Amino acid sequence: MYKQIIIVRKDLDITKGKIAAQVAHASISAYLKTEKKHPEYVSSWLEDGQKKIVLKIDTKQELLELFETIKNRITCALIKDAAHTQLKKPDITCLGIGPIPETEIDKFTSKYKLL
Amino acid sequence: MYKQIIIVRKDLDITKGKIAAQVAHASISAYLKTEKKHPEYVSSWLEDGQKKIVLKIDTKQELLELFETIKNRITCALIKDAAHTQLKKPDITCLGIGPIPETEIDKFTSKYKLL
Repeated sequence: MYKQIIIVRKDLDITKGKIAAQVAHASISAYLKTEKKHPEYVSSWLEDGQKKIVLKIDTKQELLELFETIKNRITCALIKDAAHTQLKKPDITCLGIGPIPETEIDKFTSKYKLL
Repeated sequence: MYKQIIIVRKDLDITKGKIAAQVAHASISAYLKTEKKHPEYVSSWLEDGQKKIVLKIDTKQELLELFETIKNRITCALIKDAAHTQLKKPDITCLGIGPIPETEIDKFTSKYKLL
């Protein structure tokens, strides 16, 4: 079974609409990277109904540590908001991962709770 | 200038994480449909930084009326949640539109507020 995971920082003061837009940005960006590296993952995921899980993480530091841990073995996209609307300065908001087989990603992300 | 618009129902009792997942679903689905019909829209939108606007709408009926109005002239994807998690029965949650030139869509969506 394949899924896409998006992990969002809890420590940002942004609306739920802004969060949703950031998550969609992560979803599309991770999708496009995965389509190039693992087109077979993308096909299976779309056939399965494009399962997506949105998780939360406490801080930017924790999100960056996770990114450093997985970036060389798992296709993912770190999203930085340009601060044209709600944020006061450009900042990292979330991380999009995959689609990827559940067995490959759960060991890294199972400790995070649903947003 | 190109943008993607996602319009979400306000009258659903779901978490912000669930809203974000539905918006990402709409974003990917509308993207894939537009890629087939108007690949030139998709290329321009990605180059411009994939602008996304998340709006809210009062009721399901209003969302369906909007969908009926635009569906034959504008590429869009109506999203139905299967109710595996928070909803009690399968239901329509949101509508993904484009990417599309702003001048073609604003007349239909400018009355809706940001989520």
